[in-house]
Amino acid sequence: MNKTAVAGALVVGVVLAGLLAWAGNLPSDPDLLAKAREYFTPLPKEMATASNPLSAVKVQLGKMLYYEPRLSKSGAISCNSCHNVATYGVDNLPTSIGHRWTIGSVNAPTTMNAAATVAQFWDGRAKDVEEQAKGPVLNPAEMGIPHEQFAVDRIASIPEYRELFKQAFPEQQSPLTYDNLASAIGAFERTLVTPGRFDTFLEGDTAALTSAEKAGLDSFIELGCVSCHSGSTIGGGGFDKFGIYRPYQELTGSRTLDQGRFDVTQNEADRFLFKVPVLRNVARTYPYFHDGTVWKLEDATRIMGEAQLDTEISGAELQALVAFLKSLTGEIPKDALQLPVLPASTEQTSRPDVS
Amino acid sequence: MNKTAVAGALVVGVVLAGLLAWAGNLPSDPDLLAKAREYFTPLPKEMATASNPLSAVKVQLGKMLYYEPRLSKSGAISCNSCHNVATYGVDNLPTSIGHRWTIGSVNAPTTMNAAATVAQFWDGRAKDVEEQAKGPVLNPAEMGIPHEQFAVDRIASIPEYRELFKQAFPEQQSPLTYDNLASAIGAFERTLVTPGRFDTFLEGDTAALTSAEKAGLDSFIELGCVSCHSGSTIGGGGFDKFGIYRPYQELTGSRTLDQGRFDVTQNEADRFLFKVPVLRNVARTYPYFHDGTVWKLEDATRIMGEAQLDTEISGAELQALVAFLKSLTGEIPKDALQLPVLPASTEQTSRPDVS
Repeated sequence: MNKTAVAGALVVGVVLAGLLAWAGNLPSDPDLLAKAREYFTPLPKEMATASNPLSAVKVQLGKMLYYEPRLSKSGAISCNSCHNVATYGVDNLPTSIGHRWTIGSVNAPTTMNAAATVAQFWDGRAKDVEEQAKGPVLNPAEMGIPHEQFAVDRIASIPEYRELFKQAFPEQQSPLTYDNLASAIGAFERTLVTPGRFDTFLEGDTAALTSAEKAGLDSFIELGCVSCHSGSTIGGGGFDKFGIYRPYQELTGSRTLDQGRFDVTQNEADRFLFKVPVLRNVARTYPYFHDGTVWKLEDATRIMGEAQLDTEISGAELQALVAFLKSLTGEIPKDALQLPVLPASTEQTSRPDVS
Repeated sequence: MNKTAVAGALVVGVVLAGLLAWAGNLPSDPDLLAKAREYFTPLPKEMATASNPLSAVKVQLGKMLYYEPRLSKSGAISCNSCHNVATYGVDNLPTSIGHRWTIGSVNAPTTMNAAATVAQFWDGRAKDVEEQAKGPVLNPAEMGIPHEQFAVDRIASIPEYRELFKQAFPEQQSPLTYDNLASAIGAFERTLVTPGRFDTFLEGDTAALTSAEKAGLDSFIELGCVSCHSGSTIGGGGFDKFGIYRPYQELTGSRTLDQGRFDVTQNEADRFLFKVPVLRNVARTYPYFHDGTVWKLEDATRIMGEAQLDTEISGAELQALVAFLKSLTGEIPKDALQLPVLPASTEQTSRPDVS
């Protein structure tokens, strides 16, 4: 072996030794499972709600609208542009690109499993995915549609959509409304559930996680990450101050200081409060934090320790935590990945406007 | 009936009478089929080529790259952005939106059935879909990747892609090249075949077209549209001057005068020559012509008559032609519509750059 190889082997050896020593304190599989079940539940099959009952046709309509670029002024931007189903419901950009290449101010959160969370947007200003869906369409910096009726008229100009709205909302006389448009998109988003190995583990098959992942899970609980990141979506259950022990911008390098939920409520207690992000598929939803300033999951994990727990996480423990977080990558539903063929515009359809 | 209703009924009556009188001269089904077979063939199952043999893994890799936004500098624009599989391989914009919202100068031609045509781009500057795929990635006004190696490095930074390139090009030592990247995309595009009712007709089932569509087909042949629009793709077999009998811009309202193939060859005979567009799915690939200036299929058909055939097409004949053209809408392959889950970036992956 040459010097570099020897040095490399030594580093691996030291890390392994550290991991083993530290892993010696791990609970047994049944104990860990019992502990995990105190904080986590498997993902539901779909994220149902009484206020927006799902039907096959409503979900199909919602999928079409989710992939529909005519829901933007330019005819070029769809929900999927920033919440790409092929990349776990995000665009993997720090902040998204909207109408006329406007660069947004916050990172696009994933639509995967989002319907099961407490509220939508980083500042929680929409109560559910149905309400959320109404926002970006009309935002001049995002999809840029001038007003609700414009979106309704454009969609209503297409006979296939008129028929689908009738079928999706059979009890309504005039179902083609902006509210229903958002309800249909919400219905589709309620099917964006991504179960994975962690669910298998929670259901009792402890072999579904590797020992490193189990060590990480134990740390995740013991360090107190679970005080915010719990439930079926491992986050998304509430709001918390980003930077309890240190101002976040010192750690993330954020250039602008987003006040979070304070901007919505003007309540001093809400300053720097953000919706706790969902950690399902977190290895795929980089870059991290509300402004997408941090690219590496290791860095994001370390920053969380410092900012939220006053703890320096490093070495084998950091590696194990990251291994656990990576185990949270699940399966994107096949149906959601099947692109719908979109119906043709008609003479009545307002033309795309890139200006 | 009130006056408007009477007038409306009269108009319908006159059009119907015209259609019937004119349809009286239609050939019998077997005669029309025989005539059609002189000019058209059914679409092949896939558009194979000896220079880029297809394999399942190469097509899959090509599909991933086709939907891959990291093939743009910004990380936000993929081949599919302008050649959307959900809308028959086009974006339905007059001209496409590229990096930093740059508005292109020509209409994005459909990728559906494009591999079976004589050359690529409106001016034919790429000999096949493999060569074509190399262009937009590096075009500063489209996907904006600074140079070939940049694209190669970004893709090569992702282990899943390295493995797929090995499998797709098993005979090569270092398969991750810009040429192979384009070959894989080309391989996927060679599967974008959209057979429909017209193929069923050509295969002998004359009931596959309605009488109006058959009348339109007969007109299409008799008027001489087939002198350019023939073969399996009904167009795409060569170049022709746009505006043989009248300058095209007088008819289309084009604001800039595109010289077409002349810009590539500097050959005077090539002035205003454009690749004859594929008419498969033409009802879905609006707006029309190289600069996307005309939205209605009726108008485009009429303009073609004036510009190319010195013929005023109107009334029942125009309606029949449009009916025939609409019958050319086929089925988008299910596999192409199944979005691939894209692999994660790594630390080595160059970051998206929206500047």
